[in-house]
Amino acid sequence: MRITGTFLDEITHDIPASNWGHNEWAKDFDVMKRIGIDTVILIRAGYRNKVAFKSKTIEKCTGGILPVPLDLVELFLDQAEHCGMDFFFGTYDSGLYWHQGDYQKEIDINKAFTEEVISKYGHKKAFKGWYVSNEIDSYDESVIKVYQQLTGHLKQLKNVPILISPYVHGIKQYADDPITLDQHTKAWDRAFSTITGMIDIVAFQDGQVNYHELADYIAVNRELAKKYGIACWSNVESFSRDMPIKFPPIGWPEMLHKMTIASERGVEKLITFEFSHFMSPNSIYPAAHNLYNRYAEWLLQGDADMSVKRE
Amino acid sequence: MRITGTFLDEITHDIPASNWGHNEWAKDFDVMKRIGIDTVILIRAGYRNKVAFKSKTIEKCTGGILPVPLDLVELFLDQAEHCGMDFFFGTYDSGLYWHQGDYQKEIDINKAFTEEVISKYGHKKAFKGWYVSNEIDSYDESVIKVYQQLTGHLKQLKNVPILISPYVHGIKQYADDPITLDQHTKAWDRAFSTITGMIDIVAFQDGQVNYHELADYIAVNRELAKKYGIACWSNVESFSRDMPIKFPPIGWPEMLHKMTIASERGVEKLITFEFSHFMSPNSIYPAAHNLYNRYAEWLLQGDADMSVKRE
Amino acid sequence: MRITGTFLDEITHDIPASNWGHNEWAKDFDVMKRIGIDTVILIRAGYRNKVAFKSKTIEKCTGGILPVPLDLVELFLDQAEHCGMDFFFGTYDSGLYWHQGDYQKEIDINKAFTEEVISKYGHKKAFKGWYVSNEIDSYDESVIKVYQQLTGHLKQLKNVPILISPYVHGIKQYADDPITLDQHTKAWDRAFSTITGMIDIVAFQDGQVNYHELADYIAVNRELAKKYGIACWSNVESFSRDMPIKFPPIGWPEMLHKMTIASERGVEKLITFEFSHFMSPNSIYPAAHNLYNRYAEWLLQGDADMSVKRE
Repeated sequence: MRITGTFLDEITHDIPASNWGHNEWAKDFDVMKRIGIDTVILIRAGYRNKVAFKSKTIEKCTGGILPVPLDLVELFLDQAEHCGMDFFFGTYDSGLYWHQGDYQKEIDINKAFTEEVISKYGHKKAFKGWYVSNEIDSYDESVIKVYQQLTGHLKQLKNVPILISPYVHGIKQYADDPITLDQHTKAWDRAFSTITGMIDIVAFQDGQVNYHELADYIAVNRELAKKYGIACWSNVESFSRDMPIKFPPIGWPEMLHKMTIASERGVEKLITFEFSHFMSPNSIYPAAHNLYNRYAEWLLQGDADMSVKRE
Repeated sequence: MRITGTFLDEITHDIPASNWGHNEWAKDFDVMKRIGIDTVILIRAGYRNKVAFKSKTIEKCTGGILPVPLDLVELFLDQAEHCGMDFFFGTYDSGLYWHQGDYQKEIDINKAFTEEVISKYGHKKAFKGWYVSNEIDSYDESVIKVYQQLTGHLKQLKNVPILISPYVHGIKQYADDPITLDQHTKAWDRAFSTITGMIDIVAFQDGQVNYHELADYIAVNRELAKKYGIACWSNVESFSRDMPIKFPPIGWPEMLHKMTIASERGVEKLITFEFSHFMSPNSIYPAAHNLYNRYAEWLLQGDADMSVKRE
Repeated sequence: MRITGTFLDEITHDIPASNWGHNEWAKDFDVMKRIGIDTVILIRAGYRNKVAFKSKTIEKCTGGILPVPLDLVELFLDQAEHCGMDFFFGTYDSGLYWHQGDYQKEIDINKAFTEEVISKYGHKKAFKGWYVSNEIDSYDESVIKVYQQLTGHLKQLKNVPILISPYVHGIKQYADDPITLDQHTKAWDRAFSTITGMIDIVAFQDGQVNYHELADYIAVNRELAKKYGIACWSNVESFSRDMPIKFPPIGWPEMLHKMTIASERGVEKLITFEFSHFMSPNSIYPAAHNLYNRYAEWLLQGDADMSVKRE
């Protein structure tokens, strides 16, 4: 399986801005199309007081937003349409309320926000999905309520698939109290049971556990998703969590390993966080240019390397 | 208002060396001139045992200095003159004595050091200012004494304006005990009252407080500077303090926000820390090339985007 | 003295992957040759479950290895031969057993691993040395046992020089409890006394102590190595330990300082960790391109700058 989807991360949280304008983005969409990307997912349309378009809703909520020199939502929708891709719209992340347990405020802002979004961009042909940007790693009562109360609203506004991309409470991010596979299984059995029928697709992040643990985690994710009728994609992270620099492009062997594991465990689609910073020949990181070349060579030579034995 | 001044940071403290030689610097000065820079400020002419020229004073004080393959002071002065810019000379930072409260040693070294500087470079046409490199964020008795005792000496050596660039004890650098606006106001009222008539220009760093707090801080800085007869510039930092990587080029919306805020609050000049690493098409950071392009586009289109509403 | 050796760090521990393929490596070997490199040292042939070639030994020990899209050992040996360089093979680092005191397991894996290596690559003309990859900063009973028990095995497999590259428990890495020169001297007198006749070459890392301390440390290292009949090289680190970013290319003045100190203290050869990331015109870090240019200019102009006085 090849990577056919990518997040778009310009309203960033912990990845530095590339400072791309219209032409740089257009060029990168062309490369994405050429390498097989058919799905792009806006990681979030706003974070705190930074928004991907001039949103009156967020301006009112936050008391003022940063300048918006470029309407990224319009740009991404137009580029996706031009390249025949599906665009998933990522909701607003206050960076605040849901961390304080005030899920209701997070919901209310997003209800108003997504109404504004649909009135502005709902007619765009590439608008083919929603992405709920609040990430969790376990059963989390507050966020589950966000999922429960927001998804119905989103479907009413536009009846397209809803995606989430949870993380794993793994050793690379939580060295002090990493989750066990058994704890992960129980937590997500519970979480999925409460959102079945609301969330259409789940794409777990694959970078928090050790490389030799990944197969087991993906197998569990796949099985649980199936049990609750949720499509299972894998978010094959193209950055490294193993280095002192947070975060550089990942090494190609590690990327290939994670893609292979996910393919073998039967996930339905591979997406990545994210192409433009970490895998693109246009990236601000030169190592990403090389990762692109390694990936492109591998695509050309077929799956010869997929036969490497792993545990 | 556009950015018309920049620091020169090659005797760096926490920013990696670009390893530029004569030609790379000459090329970057040409770009600076083209984009409107008329003032360059050497952040420091020496730090610990690294010096921008082969200084006998610092060699004697430290017991030995690092090799000086290139006389940066001569280079910068010549380039500034060639480009019609004003050069501010940044004093020596021991990285040691003033942190230990031994302000007298910091003063004595700098008195001898600046005498050496004037004997070597005092005749250069671009030598148009002093920059006292010891940064403070509040009333700091030791450093105030450095300001008080060193500025007279500097003026005697060459009667040109003296600049300082304080930081703010803000939440982004001091998450545990961020200063309040009221504390900041009182501290700087006191600090300015002790250095009025000695310091000509103050350019507060603008990156330590949250984006929505900045307007209030700049307004206070502007008002206090006016009260004490000090010119008020703003040091619009072109790097980001928001990312795990310390430090990448800032996002263009954040930069534009800070420039706009400062313009509206009436500061007299915008400078940046600093062009060559974070905003230059020649930077070692590719995201800086893009920031330059966004900035240049904005200059061309006028201030259309300045009309974005902010709190 | 110029730099005539470099580590090869693609099975990396804390330096991000460049993601180079065959052509990028071939191009970099050509540059190395042109700039005077005659010795290349594979920092480690494996780390945890990542290996530089498809090793059955490591696959068996770890339960599975990451994919190996490119046989780096074959590539490096062929390139070294093509360029007339000596290649030192770096042993496997479990990242595990020797840190837990289980030196026997580290030894046993490496005995089997190096047998596999010799059966595959022992005939290659460039195979001219061993590098024992377990690094220590002091007398360390476990690792000394690794040295004692592994070196005989290595010599039996192929009788070529054995290199180690210890670090110094210096202030830049251990700010809380930096070693004193006296402690360092005693620890390494003891360590060398236990491995004399087993280790042929020692190349201490030079980046953990302050620049003004380096001369004394290198003098001690040189003297102790001579006492115990071990050749003394210096590992002139071409990355900076002084910056918040871990790790960027070093500034040229610092590099020149460390090279000069080592030359003057009589070490027999200068190697670096490492050329391809931090000093190469092909590096993923643009500042490394500039460091290469500064270094090349210095080579061309002879040792004029070496006359700069240092303490």
